[in-house]
Amino acid sequence: MSYQLYYWTGLQGRGEFVRLCLEDAGAEYADVARIEGDDAIMPFLNGDREGAMPFAPPFLKSGRLVIAQVANILQYLGPRHGLVPEGESKRLHAHQLELTITDFVAEVHDTHHPVSNELYYEDQRDEAKKRAKDFREHRIPKFLGYFEKSIERGGGRFPLREHSYVDLSLFQIMAGLEYAFPKALAKQKVPLLRDLAKRVADRPNIAAYLASERRVPFNTNGIFRHYPELDD
Amino acid sequence: MSYQLYYWTGLQGRGEFVRLCLEDAGAEYADVARIEGDDAIMPFLNGDREGAMPFAPPFLKSGRLVIAQVANILQYLGPRHGLVPEGESKRLHAHQLELTITDFVAEVHDTHHPVSNELYYEDQRDEAKKRAKDFREHRIPKFLGYFEKSIERGGGRFPLREHSYVDLSLFQIMAGLEYAFPKALAKQKVPLLRDLAKRVADRPNIAAYLASERRVPFNTNGIFRHYPELDD
Repeated sequence: MSYQLYYWTGLQGRGEFVRLCLEDAGAEYADVARIEGDDAIMPFLNGDREGAMPFAPPFLKSGRLVIAQVANILQYLGPRHGLVPEGESKRLHAHQLELTITDFVAEVHDTHHPVSNELYYEDQRDEAKKRAKDFREHRIPKFLGYFEKSIERGGGRFPLREHSYVDLSLFQIMAGLEYAFPKALAKQKVPLLRDLAKRVADRPNIAAYLASERRVPFNTNGIFRHYPELDD
Repeated sequence: MSYQLYYWTGLQGRGEFVRLCLEDAGAEYADVARIEGDDAIMPFLNGDREGAMPFAPPFLKSGRLVIAQVANILQYLGPRHGLVPEGESKRLHAHQLELTITDFVAEVHDTHHPVSNELYYEDQRDEAKKRAKDFREHRIPKFLGYFEKSIERGGGRFPLREHSYVDLSLFQIMAGLEYAFPKALAKQKVPLLRDLAKRVADRPNIAAYLASERRVPFNTNGIFRHYPELDD
């Protein structure tokens, strides 16, 4: 099965959670905007295409389906590629965890844009410093502690007792924090989460992907941004 | 089928999206914390109960299942109560819309808490004014415009061409905005969305619910808060 992924070029952003899933699955996909340019995204956002109209990228085309929202896409891909356990209870649990990751990612974004997406970071730096302080002191420990405990409850290796798309997303938030908030991350006591992230990075398809040019380096256009003053 | 809903007492909050679904469905449910107190929630958050551990309320118990995250709960309830159309394409679409509502609700929250949940509103009022200005000028029009267009694409009455749980959530955000940001809402040109919200309020089960004591009035402990200085 072949997919078309639509996401802004030049950054990992929210699209990366979908890429990691497609890459781990060894799925055939085209990263459309990287081939045709960001303009390829617009007709979908403007409602000029068939199927569900996305509010924002990423969205995935799978045949005639247009699927937006990261967690929705992963929930769709998971069962098709053996990336979520069988059974309603497990799938609800996987999705619940993924939605909590979604919440966390939105909070990561708001550390550098606490006032407005219409303004540059530099124009909201004072507010960003306050928000980032709260994020480091309260939110990182709360979210990572929750994921750590979820892995513990899953037997110590996976929150769902076996590999799933959730692991890939947990890897991505750990990689993102390592880039954006290295000092804050170093203080967290989350050995199971670190171990999981390392095991994900070592999965053959993921290792190959991370070493490829398809993995755009983290940068200050993405969701995870390294501004030293926000990590101090 | 009987459910147990867990959500903080004294406010509508995110729990209200689940309540509206249960009420519209005519489902039997216990609003547990309103009976036993907020303490009833804690063992679940602390991981002292079987089933998926929630990061935060609301969560729903359905037999042995514990389901957290509003959109996840609605996706579970929808098919069981005829509150989402049949077919994968429609269900993905419904969930995508609901997740976009979730994003919007998080942004509503951040208008009064742009810095930290640990601080009172009064201690982040200056930042809240800036964030709320952006929210009124950019985010309300963008989100409501998207929902308006989704209804238009669905034939003018429902985003999914027939009644679904998404309608109930759209009603709730319109009701919340009417309370919290009446001036900003009055400026929006969203006739289809207003009409949908009105039709939802007139559904017999919803009308009965809204007239009951179970519908806690909006207040400044909830997600939607009316602070006049944020709507000016």
